[in-house]
Amino acid sequence: MSSKGRFDLVVVGAGPGGYVGAIRAAQLGMRVAIIEEDRPGGVCLNWGCIPTKALLSGAELVEDLTRHGETFGITTAGLVLDYGKLIDHSRKTADRLCKGVQGLFKKNQIELIPGRGRLAGPNSVSVNGEVLVEGDQVMLATGSSEWVPPGLEVDGERVLTSREALESRQVPARLVVIGAGAVGIEFAYVYAMYGSQVTIVEMADQMLPGADPEVAAALQREFRRKQIDVRLGTRYEELKQAGAGVTLTVSKEGQSEELVCDQVLAAIGRRPRSQDLGLDEAGVQVDDKGFVRVDDTLRSSVASISAIGDLAGGPLLAHKASEEGIAAVEFVGGVDRGPLDHAAIPACIYCQPQVAWVGLTEAQAREKYGDAKVGKFPFTASGKAIAGQHTAGFVKVVADPEYGQIVGAHLVGHGATELLPEMGLALTLEATTREIIATTHAHPTLSEALLEATLAAEGRALNF
Amino acid sequence: MSSKGRFDLVVVGAGPGGYVGAIRAAQLGMRVAIIEEDRPGGVCLNWGCIPTKALLSGAELVEDLTRHGETFGITTAGLVLDYGKLIDHSRKTADRLCKGVQGLFKKNQIELIPGRGRLAGPNSVSVNGEVLVEGDQVMLATGSSEWVPPGLEVDGERVLTSREALESRQVPARLVVIGAGAVGIEFAYVYAMYGSQVTIVEMADQMLPGADPEVAAALQREFRRKQIDVRLGTRYEELKQAGAGVTLTVSKEGQSEELVCDQVLAAIGRRPRSQDLGLDEAGVQVDDKGFVRVDDTLRSSVASISAIGDLAGGPLLAHKASEEGIAAVEFVGGVDRGPLDHAAIPACIYCQPQVAWVGLTEAQAREKYGDAKVGKFPFTASGKAIAGQHTAGFVKVVADPEYGQIVGAHLVGHGATELLPEMGLALTLEATTREIIATTHAHPTLSEALLEATLAAEGRALNF
Repeated sequence: MSSKGRFDLVVVGAGPGGYVGAIRAAQLGMRVAIIEEDRPGGVCLNWGCIPTKALLSGAELVEDLTRHGETFGITTAGLVLDYGKLIDHSRKTADRLCKGVQGLFKKNQIELIPGRGRLAGPNSVSVNGEVLVEGDQVMLATGSSEWVPPGLEVDGERVLTSREALESRQVPARLVVIGAGAVGIEFAYVYAMYGSQVTIVEMADQMLPGADPEVAAALQREFRRKQIDVRLGTRYEELKQAGAGVTLTVSKEGQSEELVCDQVLAAIGRRPRSQDLGLDEAGVQVDDKGFVRVDDTLRSSVASISAIGDLAGGPLLAHKASEEGIAAVEFVGGVDRGPLDHAAIPACIYCQPQVAWVGLTEAQAREKYGDAKVGKFPFTASGKAIAGQHTAGFVKVVADPEYGQIVGAHLVGHGATELLPEMGLALTLEATTREIIATTHAHPTLSEALLEATLAAEGRALNF
Repeated sequence: MSSKGRFDLVVVGAGPGGYVGAIRAAQLGMRVAIIEEDRPGGVCLNWGCIPTKALLSGAELVEDLTRHGETFGITTAGLVLDYGKLIDHSRKTADRLCKGVQGLFKKNQIELIPGRGRLAGPNSVSVNGEVLVEGDQVMLATGSSEWVPPGLEVDGERVLTSREALESRQVPARLVVIGAGAVGIEFAYVYAMYGSQVTIVEMADQMLPGADPEVAAALQREFRRKQIDVRLGTRYEELKQAGAGVTLTVSKEGQSEELVCDQVLAAIGRRPRSQDLGLDEAGVQVDDKGFVRVDDTLRSSVASISAIGDLAGGPLLAHKASEEGIAAVEFVGGVDRGPLDHAAIPACIYCQPQVAWVGLTEAQAREKYGDAKVGKFPFTASGKAIAGQHTAGFVKVVADPEYGQIVGAHLVGHGATELLPEMGLALTLEATTREIIATTHAHPTLSEALLEATLAAEGRALNF
C-alpha cells in the first residue's frame, strides 16, 4: 500500500460535518486530509437538504401563482409545468455548491483524497485499499443512508427513495409516500404542486413525530386543503407490482387496504454508514443500531478517533453534523469554547406551510417544570401575513413558569424556518419573555408573531 | 359642549402608537378613551405599511414568475397583469385589519370616539368642538402626514403622494418618483414590476440615506438590473403639466434636465400632525419642525400630557410608535420596566431585494470605537439562496473591536426583513460574536448568512 504521508487530521467523509470540521481544523493550523468516495458536500449538499430546497422553491412558486395570483391581478392563459426543468435546476444547484466546497478545500489547503476510506488502525485510514493516509487524529464523518424495510425493492422506477427521486424527471400521476417525516412531506408537497395526486402513509399518529402535536395538526389541515391525503396510524404491509403501477397494502387498526398508485417514495428512516469502515478491527465501539459511541467531546472508544454527525447518532441533521465537526476539532485543538450543547438544535421542514422548532415542546416543558408559560399567535392576525396571503399556521412560545425563560418555540407557517433563529439565540442566551418583549420587532413583519406569542405567554397579547 | 365623562387615559389618534398604547393601558386596568378622526389603525394600517406590503406581495410574485419561473419549469402563455385587482387586495387587507383594531377596542373595553381631537386643557380634549372628553392623562398620537415641496400640487392624477397612489388603479407608462427613501423605492419597485418605466430622483448621493452605504450601493445595482433608472445627487426643480403628461425639471451639479413622464410620485418626507391640536393654548412645547418636545418618559412640557410616535419626532416608524405608546403608559402606570431605548430600532424596506438594519453602521462603529470587527457574507454563497434563485445582496455584521459585542447588522437581500430580528435580540442582550457563533443555525436557511458574517467578523468564515 502506498502512502499519502502523515497529517494532523484525517477526515473520512466530506459531508456537512466532515468538510466544515476540516475547514475549522485548517483555520486552527492543522494539516488536513479529507477522504470522500462520492461528491464533496455529502448527502446534504448533493442528495438531501440542498437539491430538495431547489425543488421546494419551484413548488412554492407554483402554489403562490395558482392560489394567490388572481388576488394580485396576475393571470395566465396557459400554465405549463415541466418538472424535468425543475430537476435540472436542482442538479445545477447541487453542482454549483459541490464545486464551491472543492474551492474551499483549495483555499484552506485541505487535501481531498477521492475514494473509500476504511480505518487501518488508530491513526491510519486506507483509501480503496490502495493508499494509506496517516493522521494524529482521525475524524469519522461518513453520515447515514436511507433505510428501506425488507420487501421494498428500490428500482428507481416504481419504488424510489429520495436519492432516486432527486434524479427522476417525471411526476407520477399517483404517488404514495411512506413516512411523514421531513423528507416524506417535503417530497409530498413538491409532487403535489407539480400535479401528482399524493397519499402519505405514516405509522405514528401525527405527522412529523417529534414535532409539537398542535403544530403537526395544523400542518395536516393545510396538507388536506392541498388535496394531499394524509393517513396516520397506518402501517405499510406489502407492495405488489401491478402492470405499470404498484399496489400497496397498508393497515390501520388491523384493517388492511390496498392503495393503487404509479410510484412509491420510501421515506422511512436512515441508518448510519458504519459498515465496512473497519470499526471492529480498530476497536471503535458502536451501539446496537450501528451508531458510533462517543463521549462529550465526540471521542470514540479509541482516543485518536472521533465520530461526528449522523454516524454518531441523532438528530440526523446537517447543522448538527457541522456543529460537531467544528466542536470535535476545537476540543482536540484546545480551543477555549463551551461544551457541546444539543438542547437547542433547530428542526426545519420546508414544505408550505413550513415547520420549525427549537427546544422543548409544551408537553416536555410542563413535565420538566410542572407547569409552563405558553403563548400562541396565529398568522391570521398578522398584518404582514394577510398582505402576503400566507395566513396559515401560528407561533407558539414556551417559557418556564417561574422566570419566564424561553425554553422552546414551535412554528408552523410561511416563513417559519427563517423566523426561528431569534428563538435559537434566545435559548443560547437563556433569554426571558421580558427580554424578547423589550426587543423592538419591525412592523410589519412575520417576526412580530414571535413578539405577540411571547406577550401572550405573559397574558398581555396586543393584537389578538 | 356635552361631556363624555372622565377617563384614566384619553388617547388622541388611533394609529400604531395610539391604539397599541390604549390596549396596554386597558391591560393595566385603566379606563381608556381613544379619539380618531379617520380610520382606526392610522396611516400605517390604512395608508402606509400594511397596504403597501399587499402591493409588494404582488410585485414579488410577478418578479419571481417572470425572472425564475422558467428555471423552475413554470411557463405561462399570455401573462396579464391587472394592477386594479392588486389595489383591491391592498384595500381589502387594510379594511380587514382596520376592523380587527375595532374588535380589539371592544375586547379591551376601550371607548372609540370618532372625530377630530383638540386639547382643551391639560386634562381634556374636545372632539369636533362639540364633545368634551376628560382624562387624568392625555396621550397625543396624531402621527404625521406627507410633506410636499411648494409648487408641487398633488392632484391625484398627475401628481400623487403615497396616499393617492394607494387608491390609484392605473399604472402609468412612465413614472418619476421623487425621493429614494423607503416609501419612494417600495412604490418604484411595485410600479416597475407591474409595467411602468420608472425613474427615481434623489437629492442625496445614495439611495436610502441613513442606510449603510454598501447596502445602498447593492440595492442600487439591483434596481438598475430591474431597469429602474436611479438618479442620485439630483434635485427636483420644477414641474410643468404637458398635455396629458408632466415635464419635470431636475438638476444635478448645476446642470438641469427635463424628464417627461405620465405621473409623479412625491415621496420626499413627512411632517408632524401638530397643527390645530391646541398645543399652544395648553402650553405644550414643540420644536422648530413642529414635533412635540418630550422627556425620557415621553412626557411633554405639560405633566399630564404625553406625546408619542411620529408626533414626538424620529425615527418615523410604526414600531417605534407602538413601543412609545406602550412605554408612555407603563411609565404612568408605574410598571417595573427599563428605560426607553432607541438604539436598537430596526429599519426595514420591503422592495426586492429587501433592506433591513439595526444599530450602528460600520462607519458609526469605527467612529465610536476607533475600530470595528466587520464581517460580510454574500447570498451568492448561500445554499438556500441559490436553491431559491435569490442570490442578490449580503449580510454585514458589525461588532466592537475589543469584546466582539454585536453593535449593528446591515442586510440587503431577499429575506432581509425577517432575518433581522435575531440581530435585534442580539443588540438587546448585548450579545457577542461568540454567542452568535455558539447558536446553531439550521441548514439550509438564509439565516446561516448571519452566522457566516459573524464568523467572518472573527476572521473564521467557513463557507466563503
